Amino acid sequence: MNGNQPQGRGDLRAFFEPRGVAVAGSLREMPGTAFWAIRNLRQCGYAGPVYPINPEAEKYGRVFGSRVCRRVADVEGQVDLALVLTPPGTVPEILEACVVRGIKGAVVLSEGFAEAGEKGAALQSHLSDLARGGGIRILGPNTFGVVNTANGLATIPPYLDQDRICRGGVAVCSQTGSVGPHQNPVGDWAYPLSKMCDLGNKCDVDEADVLDFLACDPETEVVALHLEDIRDGRRFLRAARNLTSRKPLVVFKTGRSEEGARASASHTGAVSGEDRICEAALRQAGALAVKTWRELWEVPKTLLLQPLPRGNRMAVITFTGGQGVIAADAAVAAGLSLAGFSPESLRGLARISPRLGNNPVDIGPVMSDSRSQSSTNPFLALENTLPILLADAGVDCVTVTLYAGRQIVPLFPVIVDLLEKSTRGTGKTVNVWIYGTSLSAISELALQLQNRGLPCYTDLEIAIGSLGLAARYAAARRRPEEQIAAG
Amino acid sequence: MNGNQPQGRGDLRAFFEPRGVAVAGSLREMPGTAFWAIRNLRQCGYAGPVYPINPEAEKYGRVFGSRVCRRVADVEGQVDLALVLTPPGTVPEILEACVVRGIKGAVVLSEGFAEAGEKGAALQSHLSDLARGGGIRILGPNTFGVVNTANGLATIPPYLDQDRICRGGVAVCSQTGSVGPHQNPVGDWAYPLSKMCDLGNKCDVDEADVLDFLACDPETEVVALHLEDIRDGRRFLRAARNLTSRKPLVVFKTGRSEEGARASASHTGAVSGEDRICEAALRQAGALAVKTWRELWEVPKTLLLQPLPRGNRMAVITFTGGQGVIAADAAVAAGLSLAGFSPESLRGLARISPRLGNNPVDIGPVMSDSRSQSSTNPFLALENTLPILLADAGVDCVTVTLYAGRQIVPLFPVIVDLLEKSTRGTGKTVNVWIYGTSLSAISELALQLQNRGLPCYTDLEIAIGSLGLAARYAAARRRPEEQIAAG
Repeated sequence: MNGNQPQGRGDLRAFFEPRGVAVAGSLREMPGTAFWAIRNLRQCGYAGPVYPINPEAEKYGRVFGSRVCRRVADVEGQVDLALVLTPPGTVPEILEACVVRGIKGAVVLSEGFAEAGEKGAALQSHLSDLARGGGIRILGPNTFGVVNTANGLATIPPYLDQDRICRGGVAVCSQTGSVGPHQNPVGDWAYPLSKMCDLGNKCDVDEADVLDFLACDPETEVVALHLEDIRDGRRFLRAARNLTSRKPLVVFKTGRSEEGARASASHTGAVSGEDRICEAALRQAGALAVKTWRELWEVPKTLLLQPLPRGNRMAVITFTGGQGVIAADAAVAAGLSLAGFSPESLRGLARISPRLGNNPVDIGPVMSDSRSQSSTNPFLALENTLPILLADAGVDCVTVTLYAGRQIVPLFPVIVDLLEKSTRGTGKTVNVWIYGTSLSAISELALQLQNRGLPCYTDLEIAIGSLGLAARYAAARRRPEEQIAAG
Repeated sequence: MNGNQPQGRGDLRAFFEPRGVAVAGSLREMPGTAFWAIRNLRQCGYAGPVYPINPEAEKYGRVFGSRVCRRVADVEGQVDLALVLTPPGTVPEILEACVVRGIKGAVVLSEGFAEAGEKGAALQSHLSDLARGGGIRILGPNTFGVVNTANGLATIPPYLDQDRICRGGVAVCSQTGSVGPHQNPVGDWAYPLSKMCDLGNKCDVDEADVLDFLACDPETEVVALHLEDIRDGRRFLRAARNLTSRKPLVVFKTGRSEEGARASASHTGAVSGEDRICEAALRQAGALAVKTWRELWEVPKTLLLQPLPRGNRMAVITFTGGQGVIAADAAVAAGLSLAGFSPESLRGLARISPRLGNNPVDIGPVMSDSRSQSSTNPFLALENTLPILLADAGVDCVTVTLYAGRQIVPLFPVIVDLLEKSTRGTGKTVNVWIYGTSLSAISELALQLQNRGLPCYTDLEIAIGSLGLAARYAAARRRPEEQIAAG
């Protein structure tokens, strides 16, 4: 294998699209065992052959319809991937058997390696040697493995609602299982996921490999990456640059503080590297750094569902002036500028109300006026205003704020239709902040809008921050093209 | 009235504890009218007399059992407060009538004053003159008024689920109605609210008045303040210092950017003042500045429900190492230090598992071990670990992380009992971060824990940030005492 060929090293198809999966470990009906892993695989819809591996094959006979094999060598039929859930000391032998059997990838789901002391570290370096030998790629150990929503492959051993993960264009790669879709209400959010990969202790497969794979993965349009350390800075930067030349990369780097770095070393043996250097490198590679768990999950939605902004000039529509002030602060913090409107737009806005013309656009007073005129459409002001902003050549992106309370639920179809019709095909980047008095109404409206391609947020600052990051990514993407055009 | 007597100016009892309320405005059965305001007052449980005021008194007869009066002067019986929802031009005359009638406070809920141009500004200065005359205090105009959960007084004219606001110790004072309890799912959160005050255009009553009132309000233990501008810096700082010597004050100052300040001027006529000066002044006054809407609501919960920390040394219990790394970063960002444990604690932790001893305390591996030992209590590791940390003299505060999925719901009573028993009476500051795969499970666990006095968060960074602000407030409170002790 040649380290200079990212596509070569990055070919992780065995992990995501295996034609058969061997699962080695306990077949007791308990959480976290091979039994549960197989059950979860089937429950998530993986349809390929599954081969349980257990020394007591005779005792178990068949598990979920699959005949149990005593050893890896006994597996008949096509098998590309092994899931290993056996005690640490037994793992090297099983992996050696996988190499002999021609299995291309193994996920070592077992704990008890570098994160658990010297003995575990020695075992882990044994695994690294095996992988370096070239016969097999190894993910983990100390990992929850992978999810591929395209084929229902989900290797997470405990049941963590993985069957509720929805298919979509965001790939999430995390250093640990603690930051994964199975730790978030992704089902309730209908979060659009293509792949998940938990790197774990990174004895072999690392962030650079996964980025190389995801760069070429047609199902993946945006990548969200959680990292505690970077194994090989040069390889990582090359992989990140390669990926960001094709699709956006959002990075949540933890272990930024000395204390965080120490905590990281104690659970994965990782060495985090200095924060400022890391941040500069990420920026240079075109990655979008975020600082919180919530942002890691929220920012990709705008990048996935909306076109990239052509510039950083934003407009905000609010129902109240006070929220406009918060929005303006957030826009500045996100590197956006508040768009000034064209004379044509200003004339159009003035026709709606002499009180419109500023940005943020506070339509609250206009809504009060139209209410007092007994208008039958409470969203008339929004319906009239939004198209003017989206048609203005000086506006690149828009955040719309919406209120959701229980009493508004019957009006959701009206709002959703209105927003879809106004925004579709405009080429502008739009997202929505939903606030209000009912958690269920907020969730319901968000689901309906996201089904129509409109990303929704419950934090105004994160909605606007997402537009800021989208604008920054778009600018970086334009730069090389501009250089070519100028040349 | 003497401006140097904060208690004098700050006596806003007429607004929060009126013995009778006159409501002037349209009695049409429409949102935002006096009719709706009266309906909402009754629905929220206000039991005092209500006097509808409308020139067409004969036409309406009685509204919700109250006889309509043609003019303010016609009101018989005790009345301390007037709610004014009439067109702007009519407001001065009504307020003059209120002065004559001996009404002590008026909330001008109408819009169309300084926020709406020169004519409105002139009208507003008329109101200011009236208030300066000394006969009446005026809140607003352009406000949603007040809420007092102790007597069910809620003046918000539209129906925004105000009847779902729960009674508790946090007072929220905001510059605009756009940042109020009626814009948040406070019912679903069971958010503990004492008072709400929307300052609006501040023709008379301002933030300093409200802080003076809340400083003496026995129902209020923590104050959350949203501001776009500060009318009188000297008075505000005196009021803030007076309040923070008794209870914590969380401040969300918006209009921090030039763009935000401009947006603020356009909707309330406010002048925001320079951000850095404002922030320094707030800090000097002992206020706790936050930067996001969510923090304004979330931070007070720890301050209300938990004792103040004795220092800034924190411990974190997580189910996974990766979350510990995020927690460590957040602790450093919040000005906390990760506690080192006493020899006794370390011995106790080692008895539970040789893998414990670091901080953050990752009990995930111990939980896996006890699972494989078929322990019947899945939270045994938490039950054993938490008391050791809370008993350690070197630990001032703790964040506990909890997972909530649908399959864990039956175990909630066990978790809740465990946490309550372990934490109560320890004198340590504890809060909880809940993550997981189900929005409803997360909400349900949060409600159950908060009912037992444990503040819950859905952002780890905000949970830990709240402890950091609590520690900072506690340190500022100790300083004068230490100076006295040293003197």
